[in-house]
Amino acid sequence: MPSQEKLRALAKLTVRSGLGLKAGQDLILGADITCVELARMVMEEAYDAGANAVIPFLFDEQMTLIRFNHGSDDAIGYAVKWLPEAQARALNEGTAFLRITNSDPGLLKAIDKEKVAKSMSAAAAAGKPTSEAISGGATNWCIIPAASPAWAKQIFPDDDTETAVEKLWELIFKTTRSDQPDPVAAWDKHCAEVEKRMNHLNSHKFESLHFYGGGTDLTVGLAEGHIWEGVRMYAKNGTVCSPNIPTEEVFTMPHRDRVNGVVKSTKPLSLRGNIVDGIQMTFENGVCTKMSAEKGEDVLQKLLDTDEGARRLGEIALVPHSSPISQSGVIFFNTLFDENASCHMAMGNCYTSNMEGYDELSEDERRARGANESMIHVDWMIGSAEVNLDGIKSDGTVVPLLRGCEWV
Amino acid sequence: MPSQEKLRALAKLTVRSGLGLKAGQDLILGADITCVELARMVMEEAYDAGANAVIPFLFDEQMTLIRFNHGSDDAIGYAVKWLPEAQARALNEGTAFLRITNSDPGLLKAIDKEKVAKSMSAAAAAGKPTSEAISGGATNWCIIPAASPAWAKQIFPDDDTETAVEKLWELIFKTTRSDQPDPVAAWDKHCAEVEKRMNHLNSHKFESLHFYGGGTDLTVGLAEGHIWEGVRMYAKNGTVCSPNIPTEEVFTMPHRDRVNGVVKSTKPLSLRGNIVDGIQMTFENGVCTKMSAEKGEDVLQKLLDTDEGARRLGEIALVPHSSPISQSGVIFFNTLFDENASCHMAMGNCYTSNMEGYDELSEDERRARGANESMIHVDWMIGSAEVNLDGIKSDGTVVPLLRGCEWV
Repeated sequence: MPSQEKLRALAKLTVRSGLGLKAGQDLILGADITCVELARMVMEEAYDAGANAVIPFLFDEQMTLIRFNHGSDDAIGYAVKWLPEAQARALNEGTAFLRITNSDPGLLKAIDKEKVAKSMSAAAAAGKPTSEAISGGATNWCIIPAASPAWAKQIFPDDDTETAVEKLWELIFKTTRSDQPDPVAAWDKHCAEVEKRMNHLNSHKFESLHFYGGGTDLTVGLAEGHIWEGVRMYAKNGTVCSPNIPTEEVFTMPHRDRVNGVVKSTKPLSLRGNIVDGIQMTFENGVCTKMSAEKGEDVLQKLLDTDEGARRLGEIALVPHSSPISQSGVIFFNTLFDENASCHMAMGNCYTSNMEGYDELSEDERRARGANESMIHVDWMIGSAEVNLDGIKSDGTVVPLLRGCEWV
Repeated sequence: MPSQEKLRALAKLTVRSGLGLKAGQDLILGADITCVELARMVMEEAYDAGANAVIPFLFDEQMTLIRFNHGSDDAIGYAVKWLPEAQARALNEGTAFLRITNSDPGLLKAIDKEKVAKSMSAAAAAGKPTSEAISGGATNWCIIPAASPAWAKQIFPDDDTETAVEKLWELIFKTTRSDQPDPVAAWDKHCAEVEKRMNHLNSHKFESLHFYGGGTDLTVGLAEGHIWEGVRMYAKNGTVCSPNIPTEEVFTMPHRDRVNGVVKSTKPLSLRGNIVDGIQMTFENGVCTKMSAEKGEDVLQKLLDTDEGARRLGEIALVPHSSPISQSGVIFFNTLFDENASCHMAMGNCYTSNMEGYDELSEDERRARGANESMIHVDWMIGSAEVNLDGIKSDGTVVPLLRGCEWV
């Protein structure tokens, strides 16, 4: 049993700082049935904050497995469109969105990779209106973690389930600041620190970033008019939210055609219920032209084959090695955590809020300035104590940013 | 733990006979999280039967309570429209619909009646597209029961929870025929028997029904062109389903303006989380002009106040006293069962399939022929060993139908 007090603190932090929920707002609340206890608390906090309607979408991972094990080939390649379309309309009209994540990283490990890829592509295509509404900043949204037995056992395989779950909850409370006397104030302080860093990066208007060390030598051109963002998001519906709790990163938009060099992964990636590790990619003019992985290469290959944009970058993010998540030394097999332990980049779709005036640009202009489009957005980790980073300005000036992944 | 074998039999019966699910069909599957085990089995059976997509909607009754206890007045009187609208579109395009019901009959007993009525009205108004798609026979649909601790304890308050749940499962298996060696064949046989009765009633083309005995003396005029239905439904998408499992009733459409006399309830009614008992209603020209109840009168009053059609009848149904549910002697506090223990009638909306050529008629013609419209449809029980029924033809011929609620 997690501490009820800290669980309550996490629920409150989620509604106040994570969602920045306004009185009179509707909220879509997505959660697996194994974390219904936290979901109920969030619902209480949301109504206490004046929510007009909290619409729960409860999932069951066993049903996901059933679909793979009993669905026909046609069923696996199919996803209904009406539900994500309806959700997207609600989001675009200002409904807030929360997802509590506690997936079993190994859920689909016994399922045929081809099937998983086919299913994920169908789901991504059907879910495009929703993911566009979210990545386009239409509304306030947030993802928070909850512990589940299957996930906890993946992280702490040597502990019994109860101990593993207990340990994971404690890590969640610590990294989200829910264990602080005033979590909302602690979160605000954290936001201010990240924002200082973010403003510094924005003031430089770098043309590109140069990662080097530990087998990586990669130049990431940044999109024209790129904006560094971090922690807080200013949504189009006038709200201010923190889309990820926890989060440590500052991130921006790479240029879809200006990425060159070699890059190695520094942490394993939990992808579609499989573990991918030891990734190496070669980029030429923005495109990943060569890829290998020591583990899970086939799953990653299928991901890159999703569409043209899946082989290009959509996000580049900086996280200092001293972040609490990194310091925990734990590999979470969950992007929400692992992306905050290390510098990372995302294959696929960009966040449109990372480009100045994106909404006013034509599609051709967006592409010309470097915006990448894809049905996927998958982060993987490239930072470590061996990796350094310089910012390069248009006049050639080199500004040291990270040394051994610590801010200079 | 219910028998896994019988649970599997119920799941199979549901998909095959209940839904008559066709290969390539989509299915909306609604269930409370406390019956996820049965829901998973239904999903397996649905995919095995060739379903293209099973879209689960999992509910949590505790969240329903949270909304009442933490929602503002505005929140209580509000229901999102986009979700039922999207579901209705799917249903009208041929998606099948299943609801597993295991509600706690006493869930809302501590909640202010006014609040409950306000909330239900809002939900009914928002859910109109969905309920219209279902009652209009757009697609194959089905409601089946599952045991839950709260429901079981309401029925068997003197047993410990485990025993109560066990007993309720056994009753469910028995009344649904899931305990038979071949439940699908047993269901088919049952259908054939009910259909014989139904055809007999249809052949008479009665002008009205006269219920009398045990304090009841009520003449229920039947709609012009009324059709008796039972067990099986022929949906507009070309499927054949059994919308209720279990079911014993044959039912048709009363005339909205031609109900006169006095009628008493014979079993308690579980309404909006409250128990209503000892109901007496007086009807004049179709309208309930006087109502009293020994218990829960205020809840019933609020129901009748929903709209103009809520005071008129939408359904009249005949169930012999010898039905297995009636013979069990158990009061289930759940309409799916209790309506099959006794003759009953429904306040509110009619089933359009109970009127010949309904779809081709104008709204005025439908009303003139007796069709009633309302946001509600609530059954209550009027049959007992003391109640008799005659059918009256347009030439005045009286045909004895039930004596002491057994078929003559």
